Amino acid sequence: MSMREINLPARILMGPGPSNVHPRVMQALSSPTVGHMDPTFIELMDSTVELLREVFQTKNFLTLPVSGTGSAAMEAALGNILEPGDTVIIGLNGFFGDRMSQMASRWDVEVVLVEAEWGHIIEPEAIGKELRRHKKVKLVAMVHAETSTGVLQPLEEIGKLAHEHGALYLVDTVASLAGCHIPVDEWGIDICYSGSQKCLSCPPGIAPITLNDAAIQALDNRKSKVHSWYLDLSLIKYYWGTGRTYHHTAPINMIYALREALRVVLEEGLENCFARHHRNGCALRAGLEAMRLKFLAPESYRADMITAVMVPDGVDGEGVRQVLLNDFNIEISGGLGPLKGKIWRVGLMGQSSKASNVLGFLTALEQILTKEGFEVPQSAGVNAANKILATS
Amino acid sequence: MSMREINLPARILMGPGPSNVHPRVMQALSSPTVGHMDPTFIELMDSTVELLREVFQTKNFLTLPVSGTGSAAMEAALGNILEPGDTVIIGLNGFFGDRMSQMASRWDVEVVLVEAEWGHIIEPEAIGKELRRHKKVKLVAMVHAETSTGVLQPLEEIGKLAHEHGALYLVDTVASLAGCHIPVDEWGIDICYSGSQKCLSCPPGIAPITLNDAAIQALDNRKSKVHSWYLDLSLIKYYWGTGRTYHHTAPINMIYALREALRVVLEEGLENCFARHHRNGCALRAGLEAMRLKFLAPESYRADMITAVMVPDGVDGEGVRQVLLNDFNIEISGGLGPLKGKIWRVGLMGQSSKASNVLGFLTALEQILTKEGFEVPQSAGVNAANKILATS
Repeated sequence: MSMREINLPARILMGPGPSNVHPRVMQALSSPTVGHMDPTFIELMDSTVELLREVFQTKNFLTLPVSGTGSAAMEAALGNILEPGDTVIIGLNGFFGDRMSQMASRWDVEVVLVEAEWGHIIEPEAIGKELRRHKKVKLVAMVHAETSTGVLQPLEEIGKLAHEHGALYLVDTVASLAGCHIPVDEWGIDICYSGSQKCLSCPPGIAPITLNDAAIQALDNRKSKVHSWYLDLSLIKYYWGTGRTYHHTAPINMIYALREALRVVLEEGLENCFARHHRNGCALRAGLEAMRLKFLAPESYRADMITAVMVPDGVDGEGVRQVLLNDFNIEISGGLGPLKGKIWRVGLMGQSSKASNVLGFLTALEQILTKEGFEVPQSAGVNAANKILATS
Repeated sequence: MSMREINLPARILMGPGPSNVHPRVMQALSSPTVGHMDPTFIELMDSTVELLREVFQTKNFLTLPVSGTGSAAMEAALGNILEPGDTVIIGLNGFFGDRMSQMASRWDVEVVLVEAEWGHIIEPEAIGKELRRHKKVKLVAMVHAETSTGVLQPLEEIGKLAHEHGALYLVDTVASLAGCHIPVDEWGIDICYSGSQKCLSCPPGIAPITLNDAAIQALDNRKSKVHSWYLDLSLIKYYWGTGRTYHHTAPINMIYALREALRVVLEEGLENCFARHHRNGCALRAGLEAMRLKFLAPESYRADMITAVMVPDGVDGEGVRQVLLNDFNIEISGGLGPLKGKIWRVGLMGQSSKASNVLGFLTALEQILTKEGFEVPQSAGVNAANKILATS
């Protein structure tokens, strides 16, 4: 069994990542492996960093891809700043805020959770209150697009509050980078990271991160070593930055792929890329609404790249997902944690964010729901989506 | 600059890894990305684990690829077993033993170093002495093939000593797995890990690890959480083993590549693969010796997959490496740490371990050394290597 060929299906990836990969990225991924100290590779590293800075809209020197998936970047971001005795405020309104807290609580750090119901945003004032209540907060950490709920968290005001209280500001943009406007420098984000397999449409396994001077200073001023050698940016920075000192062997081919993915995004243009994500997100929501489906998140905070739809009463959510996968080759995702079985999560990220995916998915869903006995006005979803796609 | 095409040269990779990648592995790498919970991917995960067990020669249930490079697996191996207050004995006779100690010293662990000169093995009795001297040693950690020195460490006796004293036995086989005989179960190795880009000839970025029941028991009995969430095997085991609970998004395409690399190795057959590494290693050493070059390691402990040759007096080692790269497209490596500038490291790992590489390298080196004014008997290297390649 283990030795036989496995034929991988060409899925339409409309879950919360991975998204579909551009053919050019696949080609780059399978380019000849060179050594991690090869002059050609060093040049490629430099240009990858430059492209990352453009996508993060930052001038930060310390910008690089972490050799792991988005969660590795999350741990690198938190773990390089926090040390025993520090206080961190974490916004928790979904699965990934919870993950941050699970990480930070391992390092003798005081973790202050500011919670909101899953599906809602964290109110800036709730963060402000905790900032005032605690003597010295080192870090405020927020998730931008919570893929577990489809909520897009407003960022600017919380950043200002953090800085007013002398705290650093960390933002998770795993699902949002390249999908909507994230001007890292302008919004005062001190530490920002992302993943590769969402709006960047690269396979998973490499994760961009950027730290500004204030964050580097915090790193430099640490009294204790970073908990993880593998993720220790005070060492890694000498491989990616000045010196080129070997730290660990970079995931070379994944870096080829990331660089190509960044080129694809920047060739389209950031603004065009954001507009495409917004247009397709609007079309999907309009379609689902016309099919009389409800959303988890309130209207004003719905992310374009990931939509959480309530599974209608009496419908077997998991069953629908299986039919979508088996009969239509479309992957969407279910709910995590307390939302398990209650929602579907439909992603429109990177190369997966396209009109044909919106229309194909709505058509398939209508067919399946109708069979399941859930009454859907005929073609209402596709028509509503089409209206938006045609006019924008 | 950053947006332009970068043409990657098809190097002959004869450094300490990455090694050249088999075309079938490249093809697998660029197969369509599917979701990390896709039934096709789950099936592929299962078969990858089965193939890993064959290569590790183990029945260990907990066998999986860590989502990072070899150093991530090193940190996972050490960090899942060790917790504050524990004592670990680490054999230090090269760069990677030192890396282990740099990791373990971050976690309030007592690190006992058993040192030997770089280029020499660690004598089992030296480990035995420290095992007797310390009351309760949790773990003994050794590097099998030290790529920094070309030394192959004998493993069996140290394992027995560790177990006699109730310690677990951890072995780094980053450079040796699939290059020589490593029967994990038979040799009583409790925790073993490797890298992908050495004798497995897969691109870097994914790293196999295996833990037996005794190691899992140590993990289960921990009083504190593992230092790293990303590398926490007590969570990851539920994604790779029973339950299929999502932990982090697996580096999907890298796992495709690893699986194909394992298939390539097992199709050749482990014994054939070891014999090939041995034959080519012998041929290389015979050639270098005939060219009057000296080795760092004593004869009985020279690894077949990586050879450390002394740079002859008066020869510019770095200059020779550059000519090899620029004029012959061959990558070899220099020395690390105290051996910087003093040795060349020539790898014959995985797909890079082939007769044509041995002969091509010896020919190129003769030409360059002759130009440099170092007297080499004409064709002596190639002839000596050929003799071995022809008779075996």
